[in-house]
Amino acid sequence: MTEILINGEAKSTISVLDRGLQYGDGLYETMAVRYGDIPLWESHWQRLLLGCEKLSIPYPEKELLEKEIQLICKEKKEKLFVLKLIITRGEGNRGYYFTADQAISRIISYHSWPDYPDQYQDEGVVVRYCDTTLSENPRLAGIKHLNRLEQVLARNEWDTDDFQEGLMLTQQGHVIDGTMSNIFAVKDNKLFTPGLSKSGVAGVMRKTIIELAKNSGIPVYEKDFTKSEVELADELFLSNSLFGIWPIRIIAKTRYTKVGNITRDLQQEVNKVCPQ
Amino acid sequence: MTEILINGEAKSTISVLDRGLQYGDGLYETMAVRYGDIPLWESHWQRLLLGCEKLSIPYPEKELLEKEIQLICKEKKEKLFVLKLIITRGEGNRGYYFTADQAISRIISYHSWPDYPDQYQDEGVVVRYCDTTLSENPRLAGIKHLNRLEQVLARNEWDTDDFQEGLMLTQQGHVIDGTMSNIFAVKDNKLFTPGLSKSGVAGVMRKTIIELAKNSGIPVYEKDFTKSEVELADELFLSNSLFGIWPIRIIAKTRYTKVGNITRDLQQEVNKVCPQ
Repeated sequence: MTEILINGEAKSTISVLDRGLQYGDGLYETMAVRYGDIPLWESHWQRLLLGCEKLSIPYPEKELLEKEIQLICKEKKEKLFVLKLIITRGEGNRGYYFTADQAISRIISYHSWPDYPDQYQDEGVVVRYCDTTLSENPRLAGIKHLNRLEQVLARNEWDTDDFQEGLMLTQQGHVIDGTMSNIFAVKDNKLFTPGLSKSGVAGVMRKTIIELAKNSGIPVYEKDFTKSEVELADELFLSNSLFGIWPIRIIAKTRYTKVGNITRDLQQEVNKVCPQ
Repeated sequence: MTEILINGEAKSTISVLDRGLQYGDGLYETMAVRYGDIPLWESHWQRLLLGCEKLSIPYPEKELLEKEIQLICKEKKEKLFVLKLIITRGEGNRGYYFTADQAISRIISYHSWPDYPDQYQDEGVVVRYCDTTLSENPRLAGIKHLNRLEQVLARNEWDTDDFQEGLMLTQQGHVIDGTMSNIFAVKDNKLFTPGLSKSGVAGVMRKTIIELAKNSGIPVYEKDFTKSEVELADELFLSNSLFGIWPIRIIAKTRYTKVGNITRDLQQEVNKVCPQ
């Protein structure tokens, strides 16, 4: 059983001189394989390309990646599993400088499906605010690069099951996203989500939800959220490419007694595209 | 000849599941070996410990590291070379969450001495301002962690020999450091260097210079620099643990006709501790 492919080879180790390790100089995609297929593959691919463009990393070959992904997928019997794709700038000399002809590394790894209780989708989750702030850098915002220490520190502020996610704010107090998810708020039948031009990761599921909402005639706006705006929302939910939509049941002192209609409708739309 | 030691073993590859690659979840030190010895080892070690503390990474064993460093050093005949030490949080499951008992990875690699012309020390270097900004996060400031995309992007804004270093500013316009160095300014016989509580790396050579200056009776202050304050300095220089002190000869439109006295004195002091 192939668990990991590195540049097309079934192996599990990489040179320590790879810039992915040396500097976090690369990108990744965490992809849900559902019934033999990656329904959001095109969106993952587009975000990866944008990341390559922003970091001046040579584009990987799409057909080659698809062939390698297929190679792992066809061996697996599970209905749901996770593939993680990492693209790094490859091996290099010591120092930040790189040459245009760096040979990128591509790493595809298999992971089992996370063991989330159904209740998180059905009844919602409990969310906290993280103390670790998100820094701002327009050149790194939106893309899924390998510099993830802020998320690592934020996620490890709690180690109980009392919370399913933590929200991250900028030093200026803007709510940007969760450690592993994006956030949406419904207010007066409109859908809002934080803009990500300075911080945060533009999730593939976030993009899907925005499209599905627009197709359903729900107006969607990107805007900065403060904590109090979050807590005054009519409905609140998280998104990521694995779990789809988790309604927020409790955040800070705000308790939502039932999952809202727009959340429920979008959940159904998402589950049509991404069967659980 | 041992070029790389990973957890004490002479090999050159590491699991792609290591969190150093997955998230840049680790720290590093770039150390000058001079005539068989690392003169600034204690300072490197102290910064590494501070980094471990800030990131909640278990401390490596000092004696073990020293033994492994010696193992590489004793085989080498070069007067000057570089050892890079990387400590990561080790292998983990997918996801940002880590457990307290993670087994860290320690990687020590040999690198040849960079080929800097003597003229950089003697006559000074030409420096530019980078467009890539440094983001602010007090939890990550000062330590030498593996999330270095900002430095990678900044260093690759130029690819000619016209500049030897680029200065990085925050979005607010504060000059913090160079892509691979710290900056000092002399004004009215006082020494100034930017504070690093929100951004930047607190260089081991920076610490050494501050101590040497204080010992020589030169008052040292940490303060925020603007571009114009940089350009109005009487003397200006860069520091890093390999090259020691490089006077700045030209920055933006400011041209220094000769290397200042305080710069020259500190250079001599540094070269006593760290022979070139």
